[in-house]
Amino acid sequence: MDFSIPPELQELLRRARNLVETEVYPLEPEFFEKGFNAIEGTLKKVRDKVKAEGMWLPQIARQHGGLGLSLLEHGLFSAEIGRSPLGHYAFNCQAPDSGNMELLIQYANEEQQRKYLEPLLNGDIRSCFGMTEPEYPGSNPVWMGTTAMKDGDAYILNGKKWWTTGGEGAAFCVVMAVTDPEAPPHFRASQILVPTDTPGFIYEAVTPFMGHRGEGWASHSEVRLENCRVPQSNRLGPEGAGFLMAQERLGPGRIHHCMRWVGVCERAFDLMCRRAVERAIAPDRPLASKQFVQGWIAESRAEIDAARLMVLQAAWTMDRYGAKAARDQISLIKFTAANTMMRVVDRALQAHGGLGVTDYTPLATFYRMERAARIYDGTDEVHKLSVARRILRRYAGASGEDA
Amino acid sequence: MDFSIPPELQELLRRARNLVETEVYPLEPEFFEKGFNAIEGTLKKVRDKVKAEGMWLPQIARQHGGLGLSLLEHGLFSAEIGRSPLGHYAFNCQAPDSGNMELLIQYANEEQQRKYLEPLLNGDIRSCFGMTEPEYPGSNPVWMGTTAMKDGDAYILNGKKWWTTGGEGAAFCVVMAVTDPEAPPHFRASQILVPTDTPGFIYEAVTPFMGHRGEGWASHSEVRLENCRVPQSNRLGPEGAGFLMAQERLGPGRIHHCMRWVGVCERAFDLMCRRAVERAIAPDRPLASKQFVQGWIAESRAEIDAARLMVLQAAWTMDRYGAKAARDQISLIKFTAANTMMRVVDRALQAHGGLGVTDYTPLATFYRMERAARIYDGTDEVHKLSVARRILRRYAGASGEDA
Amino acid sequence: MDFSIPPELQELLRRARNLVETEVYPLEPEFFEKGFNAIEGTLKKVRDKVKAEGMWLPQIARQHGGLGLSLLEHGLFSAEIGRSPLGHYAFNCQAPDSGNMELLIQYANEEQQRKYLEPLLNGDIRSCFGMTEPEYPGSNPVWMGTTAMKDGDAYILNGKKWWTTGGEGAAFCVVMAVTDPEAPPHFRASQILVPTDTPGFIYEAVTPFMGHRGEGWASHSEVRLENCRVPQSNRLGPEGAGFLMAQERLGPGRIHHCMRWVGVCERAFDLMCRRAVERAIAPDRPLASKQFVQGWIAESRAEIDAARLMVLQAAWTMDRYGAKAARDQISLIKFTAANTMMRVVDRALQAHGGLGVTDYTPLATFYRMERAARIYDGTDEVHKLSVARRILRRYAGASGEDA
Amino acid sequence: MDFSIPPELQELLRRARNLVETEVYPLEPEFFEKGFNAIEGTLKKVRDKVKAEGMWLPQIARQHGGLGLSLLEHGLFSAEIGRSPLGHYAFNCQAPDSGNMELLIQYANEEQQRKYLEPLLNGDIRSCFGMTEPEYPGSNPVWMGTTAMKDGDAYILNGKKWWTTGGEGAAFCVVMAVTDPEAPPHFRASQILVPTDTPGFIYEAVTPFMGHRGEGWASHSEVRLENCRVPQSNRLGPEGAGFLMAQERLGPGRIHHCMRWVGVCERAFDLMCRRAVERAIAPDRPLASKQFVQGWIAESRAEIDAARLMVLQAAWTMDRYGAKAARDQISLIKFTAANTMMRVVDRALQAHGGLGVTDYTPLATFYRMERAARIYDGTDEVHKLSVARRILRRYAGASGEDA
Repeated sequence: MDFSIPPELQELLRRARNLVETEVYPLEPEFFEKGFNAIEGTLKKVRDKVKAEGMWLPQIARQHGGLGLSLLEHGLFSAEIGRSPLGHYAFNCQAPDSGNMELLIQYANEEQQRKYLEPLLNGDIRSCFGMTEPEYPGSNPVWMGTTAMKDGDAYILNGKKWWTTGGEGAAFCVVMAVTDPEAPPHFRASQILVPTDTPGFIYEAVTPFMGHRGEGWASHSEVRLENCRVPQSNRLGPEGAGFLMAQERLGPGRIHHCMRWVGVCERAFDLMCRRAVERAIAPDRPLASKQFVQGWIAESRAEIDAARLMVLQAAWTMDRYGAKAARDQISLIKFTAANTMMRVVDRALQAHGGLGVTDYTPLATFYRMERAARIYDGTDEVHKLSVARRILRRYAGASGEDA
Repeated sequence: MDFSIPPELQELLRRARNLVETEVYPLEPEFFEKGFNAIEGTLKKVRDKVKAEGMWLPQIARQHGGLGLSLLEHGLFSAEIGRSPLGHYAFNCQAPDSGNMELLIQYANEEQQRKYLEPLLNGDIRSCFGMTEPEYPGSNPVWMGTTAMKDGDAYILNGKKWWTTGGEGAAFCVVMAVTDPEAPPHFRASQILVPTDTPGFIYEAVTPFMGHRGEGWASHSEVRLENCRVPQSNRLGPEGAGFLMAQERLGPGRIHHCMRWVGVCERAFDLMCRRAVERAIAPDRPLASKQFVQGWIAESRAEIDAARLMVLQAAWTMDRYGAKAARDQISLIKFTAANTMMRVVDRALQAHGGLGVTDYTPLATFYRMERAARIYDGTDEVHKLSVARRILRRYAGASGEDA
Repeated sequence: MDFSIPPELQELLRRARNLVETEVYPLEPEFFEKGFNAIEGTLKKVRDKVKAEGMWLPQIARQHGGLGLSLLEHGLFSAEIGRSPLGHYAFNCQAPDSGNMELLIQYANEEQQRKYLEPLLNGDIRSCFGMTEPEYPGSNPVWMGTTAMKDGDAYILNGKKWWTTGGEGAAFCVVMAVTDPEAPPHFRASQILVPTDTPGFIYEAVTPFMGHRGEGWASHSEVRLENCRVPQSNRLGPEGAGFLMAQERLGPGRIHHCMRWVGVCERAFDLMCRRAVERAIAPDRPLASKQFVQGWIAESRAEIDAARLMVLQAAWTMDRYGAKAARDQISLIKFTAANTMMRVVDRALQAHGGLGVTDYTPLATFYRMERAARIYDGTDEVHKLSVARRILRRYAGASGEDA
Repeated sequence: MDFSIPPELQELLRRARNLVETEVYPLEPEFFEKGFNAIEGTLKKVRDKVKAEGMWLPQIARQHGGLGLSLLEHGLFSAEIGRSPLGHYAFNCQAPDSGNMELLIQYANEEQQRKYLEPLLNGDIRSCFGMTEPEYPGSNPVWMGTTAMKDGDAYILNGKKWWTTGGEGAAFCVVMAVTDPEAPPHFRASQILVPTDTPGFIYEAVTPFMGHRGEGWASHSEVRLENCRVPQSNRLGPEGAGFLMAQERLGPGRIHHCMRWVGVCERAFDLMCRRAVERAIAPDRPLASKQFVQGWIAESRAEIDAARLMVLQAAWTMDRYGAKAARDQISLIKFTAANTMMRVVDRALQAHGGLGVTDYTPLATFYRMERAARIYDGTDEVHKLSVARRILRRYAGASGEDA
């Protein structure tokens, strides 16, 4: 075992952190106050700078124009740029586009690559992913109402989606739909590329989320598919493989989220420590002198270090042995990192007193926007149960029983 | 000891609950989506209905036009109407006006009563309270920068206030200001009634709070006082008594908040249970069948019952023995009820999955807006330390030592 | 609602507390060091003093020679005498005898009363209760292996019991056994009085419990019943009523435990506060000056007050409306009070540093012996599930669904 | 970064685990029931087997007859053998002897090595360490009452020690004593080797610890030094260096404890999972089917993985950069690993129901004996404060302030 980070990687991390601090942090106040559209233009210039500095698409292989970082390396990178809610966007490794890029790299045919993948990699368009449905629980991903019925050489899609993140302004949507309702549950759905200007692809609403509808990339659409017709050549990957492809997409997707959350933790920790030494609670007495605050700092440091190591180990396992070998670890980090983040943010907010609940720091944004981390891509409870059941099956097997 | 509630009071509680459910709940969606101003008109009609049904000003003595409930009775009442974030407003017992009413009833001279108290009781005007300052920690309430210097028969006020809740649209502000910087710390400040249209009373900003500036009653102003001149006859109560009056105001003020939070808990609990029985996680299998959810329900029920009983006992002690006798109990309920509320809301939100973070239920509003409960009127930490030190002083006294 | 305690009751509580502090506390060190037998003689003299002072059998009706306290009053009494692990024994209201007394008062015929109840009330004999079985989970009380087969006018008992508290030295055991295996599950078992010197009633072992076998009242026997023959006239109550009678016994039994645990909490809290003011962490600097310790004190005070109020309210409900009306409350206090106790004891122990894990204070005894409180008479989990399911049934009913 | 374990080391770990499971586990029941002396003879034979298998003294350099494992390697080794409370003893790497070995290797002169170190390495004698004092808080290690006054070529020692682990039967004690009360606080004390048969080295008591006095290695002596005279040549290391040497000893000492606790966690986890699949809660329904138990398993797995990675990273830092560089990490793992262990043990115990509090599994022993882990070698609180203050000093420096 070796916990060291090679000097070249350290240098890359330092540069990424520096770019985020100098170029992205300054955009936050306007983002918090006015929303995504107000800063999209400036953010585009930051993206140009990222390209110029050779840090564009850190997670993507070199042959596709990225840095070709391993998952472990990207984990470290993500913890730096995740310090700002706009960090990943600046480097074009933000959800849901990064997941869609991976899908397209693996499954898109040449035409699909040219039409959808290339502009996505360039940052010319955005995309979205249509899986979750309002009437069906996310904890049961094979239970789904949207259908894609064949009609000639086309699919006709009908159904409802929500939590279609970044739907507003996206060029296309990867839609999960049942193409064969008679197949075994895990083989019923396929993934279909639907340009958002296709007739019958209808934005019904933007979900009001923790007090805001948001806008553009920073919003979540509710989409109705009503006799929405696309050619069958828009199917991504094999028919019936939708669920398996979604699982493949979600495994790394979850780890990407966890990596970013470590960055949120570090930012909150940093703000808490700064506040502690800068805020006077009496003349010549800093907040830092209080045991309560010292306790929060020690506990937060320990919990962040734990989450960081677990996330990196999971990434290392995926790099070396693949997604299946890392299944337990991914479930464990999903709920561990999300809950660590929420506890650390909560302490940092509390350490700021009244200032903590204002939008003068990013803490209130983290507090309310990141609460969803314990829900999306599998709730805490879904991941706890799934990892426990796999562990228990191994024990039951050992003792000859079926749990 | 007797835990029973007299039948007449039960009937009053039932009526209050019914009015909130039928008249106030329906206003919530628009309030969450568009803000306070959008519903202020309709809310005025609800207030008329409250008056017509004889439930106006539940906390105020009969000679001032209220119901004359004891604090214990108002605690039970508050838990009913606190189920909606608009409930207290509908009955004219909302912060900060209710605290200002109490101050004015106790300290206002005849002219002040006529000018400020009467329209406040009628619901014709709103008011605000200017105590907290951005540069000084709330944990040290005698350390304050705002001054009121005498000039002829006037005071000239200078300083900065924030967290002036409901400042926007308020007719007057009760301002805490140092009138004698040479006096012992607890006798430096006085309370002064400042009409908000007085020159030099300047609204600098509305504090962006958890993603929103809010508006009207549901907002928090930042106020600058710049050579703001008011006649000395606008002083409320004796000179130098500002801190003691604020303490008197805050004691019951805290208990009022706690009572309302029990209502928030009950609403969240109710939503969680309804969701559990209504949401299917598989065909014919409700969410309620899951042990995790059952655990949340049992733990929440226990914690709400505990908070409710502690709050009612504190109210009973204040009713019977006065504020000083209840000091420990008030500190204990302040942090207990606030944390219970946050835990219960968090569980209810989690039980709703993706729906929980939307604004389609009141849970996301509770989650982000009520987080401040652990901060205002004394943080969790301030109350823990203050009750512990009082307890330890009694032990140290007993053993002849000084802690 | 009224939280006051009448002066006469206050005086009784003061006297009970005083007797425990002056007569029972001094026996603790020898009890911790040498065990129950070493102090049984002295404890007998304390019992005589309790009788002489008119506080014998506080929980028993006057016509049976007790004080006739209501359950609420006994709750307050128990919190005083529960401050010592020997307190309840001194007043003859200790488990399992107190539960057996209640059973016998309600179900014993005249002969059974004379033979078993009277010497028990006098404190001349001890008794035990044989319900739990090693091979069957306590969470499923109708699943049981012990049988009592009729043979002429006798029962022949066969089976295994454990956690037969106070079995060593007991004069008789109330044994739960299946008398009709064909009956519906809740009507299979009966309760049978078995003198411990009956052939076939075999003490197999004393269960080593947290490092000690213990002895006498303070021990838990493992009993084998091997063709153990007793007359059918030894059956207590109707045939097939064993399970229902056990439930009746357990309802108040649980509340009795909870009341005692409040006493344990108060003792631990008291020790923590004393330690804080007496222990110097530097010359002239008491441990009490530390925020961490102050935090523990405040949190413990809040949690104890909460547990106390919930327990007293449950007792009040049982007194006024009976056991069925109090079912939810009893489940809620069972896990709330047990967990509160463990947290408070843990903090008090930690505040004592190295001294906390020694047997020089009662804290280490509380820490290890009371851990069982979260298990016996229904685990935390069993009570959470049972109360949640009752609550959810009411919601499901309301919405026309079956959870 | 690389999380892989080389195959040779994996093989060594497998062999160590196997030896513990086949040779040491079988001694536990007698150890729990009868104490250390009853098994000391058998344990000696296990030690011979360990020697024969070439696994003796894993933590000691090869030139002293050990395996020469790095701290990281020993961390992995310890997690295997720490699964039994007797594991480390079997390999001669148990506290307090392992710490004393390190001291002697670094500071003992030739005669001291021959007389004290060699028989200790051989396992022919045991030793103890006399630092903690009953009248002085462990949180303030430079505040100490024991003195060693020079008298000719001798020291005369006076004072009291407790928590002298393994004092009973030890051949010598390393005593911390003030040799120069006028020196600056950190340079007052020296370490002196005192054979336990020296007149004036008096065993006053064995501290009753969680219900047991214990015996031999598994006990904690209270020692009085009364005009105890030893030659000055028994001083270990330089005069006045006692505190610094103790710090050096404690750094790795803490990490050794943490490594062992990971083993305790794994054992408890293993027992919990086995119980879950083997225990039926209804015919054909294993305990493992319950979400509550599944939740405990998932949370425990996550927390153990976190603690393990943090401990290994701290060991790696010490191996590569030395103790000073690892100071923060050591404080963080001290409280993290201790609390993780207690939570995991608590859940495993609860999952066993009534069986969990018996001595039929090692869980009750872990529960009560390991509670001290949150206290010795620095309480949770001491480590939280010390790491937080170091972190905050870095921030204060950065912003030009002194916290």
